[in-house]
Amino acid sequence: MLYGALEAGGTKMICALGDENGRILEQISLPTIEPSVTMPRIIEYFRDKEITGLGIACFGPIDLNPNSATYGFITTTPKLKWANFNIVRTMKEALHIPIGFDTDVNGSLLGEVCYGAAKGLENVLYLTIGTGVGGGVMANGRLLHGMLHPELGHITMLPHPSDSYRGHCPYHGICFEGMAAGPAIEERWGRKGAELADLPEVWELEAYYIAQALKNLILTLSPERIILGGGVMHQLQLFPMIRASVLTQLNGYLDTKELRDIDHYIVPASLHDDQGIMGCIKLAIDAAALSA
Amino acid sequence: MLYGALEAGGTKMICALGDENGRILEQISLPTIEPSVTMPRIIEYFRDKEITGLGIACFGPIDLNPNSATYGFITTTPKLKWANFNIVRTMKEALHIPIGFDTDVNGSLLGEVCYGAAKGLENVLYLTIGTGVGGGVMANGRLLHGMLHPELGHITMLPHPSDSYRGHCPYHGICFEGMAAGPAIEERWGRKGAELADLPEVWELEAYYIAQALKNLILTLSPERIILGGGVMHQLQLFPMIRASVLTQLNGYLDTKELRDIDHYIVPASLHDDQGIMGCIKLAIDAAALSA
Repeated sequence: MLYGALEAGGTKMICALGDENGRILEQISLPTIEPSVTMPRIIEYFRDKEITGLGIACFGPIDLNPNSATYGFITTTPKLKWANFNIVRTMKEALHIPIGFDTDVNGSLLGEVCYGAAKGLENVLYLTIGTGVGGGVMANGRLLHGMLHPELGHITMLPHPSDSYRGHCPYHGICFEGMAAGPAIEERWGRKGAELADLPEVWELEAYYIAQALKNLILTLSPERIILGGGVMHQLQLFPMIRASVLTQLNGYLDTKELRDIDHYIVPASLHDDQGIMGCIKLAIDAAALSA
Repeated sequence: MLYGALEAGGTKMICALGDENGRILEQISLPTIEPSVTMPRIIEYFRDKEITGLGIACFGPIDLNPNSATYGFITTTPKLKWANFNIVRTMKEALHIPIGFDTDVNGSLLGEVCYGAAKGLENVLYLTIGTGVGGGVMANGRLLHGMLHPELGHITMLPHPSDSYRGHCPYHGICFEGMAAGPAIEERWGRKGAELADLPEVWELEAYYIAQALKNLILTLSPERIILGGGVMHQLQLFPMIRASVLTQLNGYLDTKELRDIDHYIVPASLHDDQGIMGCIKLAIDAAALSA
């Protein structure tokens, strides 16, 4: 059986073909321009592939509620040409196959839970820290949607006493994304993160903010493992700093076997940036199984 | 069928008898002294009641992992006589019936989900704000445990610019419980909350902190409804202040039908402080059904 995978990002659309084991057989990347230009190319790619189902992990916010009139829509995105666009129906009308649909970060999380660093766990947190900050949550064995879906990038931050930067987020200023995403690093230090790799003070501060968010997410979600992906996390020196800072900030309040083995609790994404597309394959497999 | 309910709190133990509809048939309250004194009295109460199952909602931290060697224990509590006490095994060896076990706040949440303000919902947040702050989470239709269980009282707070108080929590100082629980109100203003009911500035500040926590919990858990209980929330003037402040602090970032109808989204506990004991009855019903 062949499954289609569409990782729909704000800058590029990755289309891939996968098998029932989550293996990627081929993939292409298309620029995210506007629906009238980009969607026909995506449809063209999948049309003759004889796929049994399609999984879409999509930038958002998106409507995931199957009972909603706008299910399958990209909703209030600042990418205005994509706002209020029904990506699920567009693909469904073109391909007439079952479609699984979730957020981009839930897709990456699903990839890691099924094929990567969180295999077999039921309560997992996945964060991507790059040009923005996003988070996917698996709770009690299922991806968490609830009222909408988590928007972890916008939780409040307490600024570090030494940091006078007041944040990059147009909505909240000082929030996780506003203080710790790539644009905040660049604005605070005057250069892109990749050019600052040798400056420990940059990464100590970055680790402080990421750890503060993790402390709060641990206290709230009680995950069994935390996976960190995205461009900023390619700075692997961050990991030991983040782990140490999480323990410092928790200050002994929690004592669990996971925290005592924190090197295996807070870990990098393990699928070489294929976690998103592999999660899409799993969304496709599940959608096909559900409609079989 | 009769079910036993034990709401095990740090100051009192409520023992009750309930039916299959969650109705409380009778109840008694015993002071929480120490296991060797209190447990025999609890066992004495339940011994001749012919109950089919027992539900225990317990102060914590507790071990909820059925695969753990310390399942059923109260673990690292500052109430030292109860630390490392196996409350589940003690009751099991006395009564030989199925026992359901969860946190005190998850018990209250379960009561509200089954019989109260969140009937039928699958993603619900319950907060109790009193001498401490605790939270229970239902995610994807089940109470959330994960690695341990949520400890929502200890998430970080950003102090209000006008507030120089630095928090009551011995672990974190400025955290939700440290800034907003009863003892923080008393220390900040010099009198107990109940004596400050007429001072709007007290409740505006209190609402700011509760709303800040709710903003972050909404962005993280995406609950379909939020229920607020506990002594502090008996100040009902807080509700409209909290709702307004949540919307101000979210600053338009999320747009959902729940937030547009916020009076029905953030609501008081509805079971007249019986939500905990009713949740215990449900824990007992579920435990009996599972072992039948």
